[in-house]
Amino acid sequence: MPQDNKLSDKRILVIGLGRFGSSLALELVHHGWEVLGVDSSPRVVQIFGESLTHTVIADSTDDEALRQIGAAQFSRAVVAIGTHLEESILTTSQLVDLGVKDIWAKATSRRHGRILEQVGAHHVVLPEHDMGERVAHLVSGRMLDYVELEEGFSLIKTKAPQTLIGRSLRETKVRQRFGITVVSVKRVGASFTYATEETVLHKGDVIVVAGRTKDVERFAESS
Amino acid sequence: MPQDNKLSDKRILVIGLGRFGSSLALELVHHGWEVLGVDSSPRVVQIFGESLTHTVIADSTDDEALRQIGAAQFSRAVVAIGTHLEESILTTSQLVDLGVKDIWAKATSRRHGRILEQVGAHHVVLPEHDMGERVAHLVSGRMLDYVELEEGFSLIKTKAPQTLIGRSLRETKVRQRFGITVVSVKRVGASFTYATEETVLHKGDVIVVAGRTKDVERFAESS
Amino acid sequence: MPQDNKLSDKRILVIGLGRFGSSLALELVHHGWEVLGVDSSPRVVQIFGESLTHTVIADSTDDEALRQIGAAQFSRAVVAIGTHLEESILTTSQLVDLGVKDIWAKATSRRHGRILEQVGAHHVVLPEHDMGERVAHLVSGRMLDYVELEEGFSLIKTKAPQTLIGRSLRETKVRQRFGITVVSVKRVGASFTYATEETVLHKGDVIVVAGRTKDVERFAESS
Amino acid sequence: MPQDNKLSDKRILVIGLGRFGSSLALELVHHGWEVLGVDSSPRVVQIFGESLTHTVIADSTDDEALRQIGAAQFSRAVVAIGTHLEESILTTSQLVDLGVKDIWAKATSRRHGRILEQVGAHHVVLPEHDMGERVAHLVSGRMLDYVELEEGFSLIKTKAPQTLIGRSLRETKVRQRFGITVVSVKRVGASFTYATEETVLHKGDVIVVAGRTKDVERFAESS
Amino acid sequence: MPQDNKLSDKRILVIGLGRFGSSLALELVHHGWEVLGVDSSPRVVQIFGESLTHTVIADSTDDEALRQIGAAQFSRAVVAIGTHLEESILTTSQLVDLGVKDIWAKATSRRHGRILEQVGAHHVVLPEHDMGERVAHLVSGRMLDYVELEEGFSLIKTKAPQTLIGRSLRETKVRQRFGITVVSVKRVGASFTYATEETVLHKGDVIVVAGRTKDVERFAESS
Amino acid sequence: MPQDNKLSDKRILVIGLGRFGSSLALELVHHGWEVLGVDSSPRVVQIFGESLTHTVIADSTDDEALRQIGAAQFSRAVVAIGTHLEESILTTSQLVDLGVKDIWAKATSRRHGRILEQVGAHHVVLPEHDMGERVAHLVSGRMLDYVELEEGFSLIKTKAPQTLIGRSLRETKVRQRFGITVVSVKRVGASFTYATEETVLHKGDVIVVAGRTKDVERFAESS
Amino acid sequence: MPQDNKLSDKRILVIGLGRFGSSLALELVHHGWEVLGVDSSPRVVQIFGESLTHTVIADSTDDEALRQIGAAQFSRAVVAIGTHLEESILTTSQLVDLGVKDIWAKATSRRHGRILEQVGAHHVVLPEHDMGERVAHLVSGRMLDYVELEEGFSLIKTKAPQTLIGRSLRETKVRQRFGITVVSVKRVGASFTYATEETVLHKGDVIVVAGRTKDVERFAESS
Amino acid sequence: MPQDNKLSDKRILVIGLGRFGSSLALELVHHGWEVLGVDSSPRVVQIFGESLTHTVIADSTDDEALRQIGAAQFSRAVVAIGTHLEESILTTSQLVDLGVKDIWAKATSRRHGRILEQVGAHHVVLPEHDMGERVAHLVSGRMLDYVELEEGFSLIKTKAPQTLIGRSLRETKVRQRFGITVVSVKRVGASFTYATEETVLHKGDVIVVAGRTKDVERFAESS
Repeated sequence: MPQDNKLSDKRILVIGLGRFGSSLALELVHHGWEVLGVDSSPRVVQIFGESLTHTVIADSTDDEALRQIGAAQFSRAVVAIGTHLEESILTTSQLVDLGVKDIWAKATSRRHGRILEQVGAHHVVLPEHDMGERVAHLVSGRMLDYVELEEGFSLIKTKAPQTLIGRSLRETKVRQRFGITVVSVKRVGASFTYATEETVLHKGDVIVVAGRTKDVERFAESS
Repeated sequence: MPQDNKLSDKRILVIGLGRFGSSLALELVHHGWEVLGVDSSPRVVQIFGESLTHTVIADSTDDEALRQIGAAQFSRAVVAIGTHLEESILTTSQLVDLGVKDIWAKATSRRHGRILEQVGAHHVVLPEHDMGERVAHLVSGRMLDYVELEEGFSLIKTKAPQTLIGRSLRETKVRQRFGITVVSVKRVGASFTYATEETVLHKGDVIVVAGRTKDVERFAESS
Repeated sequence: MPQDNKLSDKRILVIGLGRFGSSLALELVHHGWEVLGVDSSPRVVQIFGESLTHTVIADSTDDEALRQIGAAQFSRAVVAIGTHLEESILTTSQLVDLGVKDIWAKATSRRHGRILEQVGAHHVVLPEHDMGERVAHLVSGRMLDYVELEEGFSLIKTKAPQTLIGRSLRETKVRQRFGITVVSVKRVGASFTYATEETVLHKGDVIVVAGRTKDVERFAESS
Repeated sequence: MPQDNKLSDKRILVIGLGRFGSSLALELVHHGWEVLGVDSSPRVVQIFGESLTHTVIADSTDDEALRQIGAAQFSRAVVAIGTHLEESILTTSQLVDLGVKDIWAKATSRRHGRILEQVGAHHVVLPEHDMGERVAHLVSGRMLDYVELEEGFSLIKTKAPQTLIGRSLRETKVRQRFGITVVSVKRVGASFTYATEETVLHKGDVIVVAGRTKDVERFAESS
Repeated sequence: MPQDNKLSDKRILVIGLGRFGSSLALELVHHGWEVLGVDSSPRVVQIFGESLTHTVIADSTDDEALRQIGAAQFSRAVVAIGTHLEESILTTSQLVDLGVKDIWAKATSRRHGRILEQVGAHHVVLPEHDMGERVAHLVSGRMLDYVELEEGFSLIKTKAPQTLIGRSLRETKVRQRFGITVVSVKRVGASFTYATEETVLHKGDVIVVAGRTKDVERFAESS
Repeated sequence: MPQDNKLSDKRILVIGLGRFGSSLALELVHHGWEVLGVDSSPRVVQIFGESLTHTVIADSTDDEALRQIGAAQFSRAVVAIGTHLEESILTTSQLVDLGVKDIWAKATSRRHGRILEQVGAHHVVLPEHDMGERVAHLVSGRMLDYVELEEGFSLIKTKAPQTLIGRSLRETKVRQRFGITVVSVKRVGASFTYATEETVLHKGDVIVVAGRTKDVERFAESS
Repeated sequence: MPQDNKLSDKRILVIGLGRFGSSLALELVHHGWEVLGVDSSPRVVQIFGESLTHTVIADSTDDEALRQIGAAQFSRAVVAIGTHLEESILTTSQLVDLGVKDIWAKATSRRHGRILEQVGAHHVVLPEHDMGERVAHLVSGRMLDYVELEEGFSLIKTKAPQTLIGRSLRETKVRQRFGITVVSVKRVGASFTYATEETVLHKGDVIVVAGRTKDVERFAESS
Repeated sequence: MPQDNKLSDKRILVIGLGRFGSSLALELVHHGWEVLGVDSSPRVVQIFGESLTHTVIADSTDDEALRQIGAAQFSRAVVAIGTHLEESILTTSQLVDLGVKDIWAKATSRRHGRILEQVGAHHVVLPEHDMGERVAHLVSGRMLDYVELEEGFSLIKTKAPQTLIGRSLRETKVRQRFGITVVSVKRVGASFTYATEETVLHKGDVIVVAGRTKDVERFAESS
């Protein structure tokens, strides 16, 4: 299937090289992708001229410009334009009409995200919203990191609570008591390793815990 | 210890109610925190007047204004001002001098973040950068979510790969072969549950996998 | 069928009271419609306060505002916002989500029009384009008015050509010779009446001619 | 008569290549005219450099510039400048003084139109007003197109009403009953042809009807 | 004749109270006229609130506003709007349509002046041009004042030239030698009185001279 | 005396080529002066490149620039900068310090004029004020032109009043009755000539009258 | 002498309450002066409402406003307007005309200072220039403070140089060797006292030295 | 010690060539320093191209740019950016991270100064504040200059008071009576010389007096 073939390639078009777009593009290059970075600002394009595979100065709201840079040849594109709603929508609309299979678009509000979907974007990302919600779980200091993998199911990184120290996880029955699983454990000065029922927690250990959101939160607060 | 006491309260000052600040503040209210939201725009403050515990219209770059809203009484504050570097730094500098114990500040660039640290912020967040890097792992479509919990150690959500289907995790020896742990599993139509060595994966299952970043990536690409 | 019922009512929401929107709204009121005119400018709303059925000052890009003016109760709406692409798209997107059955939207460019369709507008109008093309047929002075009713089929208003004067249409065989029909005729000082095969054209008569575009143009140029 | 001679040429000057001006200019080129397109924006002129006969970058408010592009050699000109009242009036005033015989000018308001006439424009067009009024007749969905050829005399395109189907126009006596004439008829899948007294309408036919405005509207609403 | 009656009244409408308009209005009030001063700036109107007969804050480009202040009741009006060409033309056009008999309008360029005439202004004044030309005659220091009363006929104020001192004007034959007339003479410390053939000029006298422009200039340079 | 010598030359520096400056400069060139025109706008300088003796693009607020164009070599200069008070004052201040003997400066307000005098300008002109006052005398239609040559002494151009027609000036005793002198007279179709006691006025004659301001005004109104 | 009397009062008008003006005004209040602070910004005036004797919101470029606040009653005024050259000059010009005896004005450039003098300011201060030059002497770290009291005569604060320590000033012959006088000396932890010939310097002493600029600089560098 | 060595060099980086920065830089060049002047404005850099040792056009907020101009090689730098708080802080933060040993930074407010210190500046200067306070002592006219060398210890320049004239300083006992020292004395037409106990003051002498601030002020007011 040529189409699948196409999606399995590691080529991507990233339009907009602001904070979000450039971080994403650099990370992809780091993982071996071939990235064509596009921005309307010559200065921005110059900055990333050496670190990205290809860069082009172009106004992505201009049909003709998108055609000239060969946007239609890409199976994946990221519209990382954030400041101007209009440019973000125009660009996405054009990529849809050019037949790009997999379009990721950054939105700055839920309505913006909704329009990008109506216009045809396949994935919509709201960095400020998402990070705002994520950081909300960290400010108490009890969790060291937090990520909700699905509505109602989360993973957190936290310090091993006092009450669990010195005994194996099996003995402490955390799974039964809190409805959560200790996934990984990190000794002071060492890296993370996976935890088993036999793992014994020590003072200072950092653990990763999975479970229903309300359960992992209750667990973190218990410590 | 009055200090610890203070930090254990669930009161927080959130300055700047843009996308990031408001998402964070609403999430905290949702989790039972008492949030004082501050913004210089009367319109913005009005929008969140009912959903946050308290709201105040104030110019946080003004020493006097911060004093009047009682900023010094808070042990925790979030400076969620993003657009204007200057306001973000002025506000943080003042909170430091008012003796706020735990200051989270949003930055828009690494240098901005560095200055916030020099000025005295305790935690700096870069939403656009962080989300850019995170989304970079998702565009290939092989991972459904990705989070790096620590330099070099990550968790991903992915579809159960074809080669693991129909056998227990013990039998497939994923841990040995890939150096990763399958943490949780989600059947079609059901919620996530924790995975054990006996868990048998089915077609369509979504799994959460933990391990060293390069191992989980290799695992995801193998599918 | 309540739905049809709904569409058969003569109530309409007109958002944006600029040149296009206000002309449209006034014409509808003149024909007995109940028009709710909306604009974000208090001054504009004041101007039409007496001539439209109802007027409201509201920012149509704000979800809440649209809800408050009861946009969802209308089965028909016109988005006559022209200057700001962004506002035009945001408003249309929201009307779609509120379930308005019949949305007319004004566009300022073909791409703008395309996005409005992608977002869900049912009819898109491009006044500047359409009038530009229409006037193009009038500058030669041979046609007095021109309208293309369908791709390739047009009606024109023109002076009765010299060669047809003094004889009945039947005698002149215009239909056979030009492939067109003389639809109506207007004597100097009188109103239009329909033309028949027996109609005899006089010097100074103005006629309306229907036919394939290229035929009516050839006819007009022959005069 | 040299003057008539001059007016019979197919050369035209179009000043302002925005939506209206460019649509008009392209349509004229399509019909074999020789068009000199003028705009003060180098980028706009470049866009139409290949599709119009000639293009020039010039500031039409500058007497000298108009002289240099040979404006006085044209017998016909269109002033399609819309945004800036001032430029529109200055340009028109200068074309009048250069002796251009037939000047069409686009206005954005009735007062603007009045000034253009006072200054000496021969024809004034108000696209937004005109289209606003025209679309007002279409929103009910009963007419598919509408054009008023003269104060009080209109043509509409509409679906054949249920009550006329299956009989010849003569039998249905529409002319007598409604005071209108069915001019043309279009079968599903076919093109428009002219209608006669013998024409029998079928379900799904689209017809063009001429008559006094209030009569054709009454006819459309009867359906 | 009521119309003549009307023009013989001493009522005037002055629109625009900038440097030119306010100087004119104040001078007229000083000479017993009844002046209605109009400006769109509340601050400007306030400044002249006491010194002019009546003042009104109004946007003179708005038809309705002009009607409300009773512009049509005036037989004379001055459009002293200088900065914005557009407002100057709009206002003049409206006064013409309201039937004001005698309209004076200030222009900032010859083309602006031409348009004001095309639109219907009865008198056009170009202060900057006129004063520029007038001052040009004074910079040499030989004339103390200069005014061209008609193309080719001027009056100047100058010091009595050395060669004419001590003799009567009859004796010096200035009229014959220079083709000019000494009109008035002003002794040091006294006022101007008219000069006769018998007038004897003294050192330090200032005289007013009339004649053809080139003659008075030659006379001034001879001194 | 070298100084007088210097002032007797016909060289002048005109800074600012707007309406006032350019009219003045062109008039001087027309009278045989050598004019160096200076403006900071390349476009403006280009326009007058051919009509003025010399032109230079320079920022006259910059000391160095004024020195480079040799401003100190001029004994006469006109500062015709009107829009920006600051530039007008800076330029004048510098010309004073460069030792220019005779500086004319245009002001836009009395205070501006006062500062120019304080800074050292020798003559200050207020075109808008002066023309405003002058035109005030013309709007009644009784005077055709008006100029005040000195506080309280004026010249006017007016139509010969009915009561003076048909008799010699001596007979009509205008001098005794009105305190004014008829200076010049212009027959229909002819030029002005000087008037004597024997001059007989005819219907349609235009006359120039000198006298005390209130006397000439009374005379004009009597007509 | 009432005039002297007037100057001996401790009342002052400070116009412009920016950094310079407010620091000056507060210092004067601190020393018992009666200060009337004026600024056009209501917010600025509010800030100093309690700390200055009187405050007024007024536009000091407006003749009338200055009169109303009684500027003419002051014998001393400071024009501390810095940003806008124009306002600074207008205000100073008006204070001169109101007869204020002693006017201090802040300038931002030498030319600005020159104009203020031409307009009539009695003292002109250039904070940025003066501080720039002063700090230039401190960056080497050898002087702790520097002030030039007169062209060529300065005072510096510096650490006692190694070579002078342990002996009386008379013995070290600094006056003869460097041409400077040690004026005051400050022991570690103590205040400054005056130095005599018998003073013995200790390690860590800070001294104030007076002398010709080049001599005190040579002295400082010798250390 | 290479570090000391480094600080003993006479090379300095001055960023920002406005009033303060350029005055400082020129003064340093005058004293034999090697100054690298940096500004983002090409025009400003050009102005100082000849008077400073080296000049570079660079945006000092850009990490890379600072590195390219070799900022890290300097042991001393002055951040003389005043208008934009943000640029001032960004630049200072970067110089700190590049390891510059001695950073002087100009601030426009106390909070700005505080942040510069938090970020790591070694010395902060507030020109407007400092000059404001200094000038406050001069407006009474009794002191000719004033400088506070330390909190509570000042030097002033003043006219010799009447009561001290004609006798030696020893006889007048100023030190005892006022607690101050007469440091230097300047005869009319001569330069300053140091004063001794034997110095006799004459009418018109200018003296420099040192002492505690309140003492020198009391002394000055006594005169």
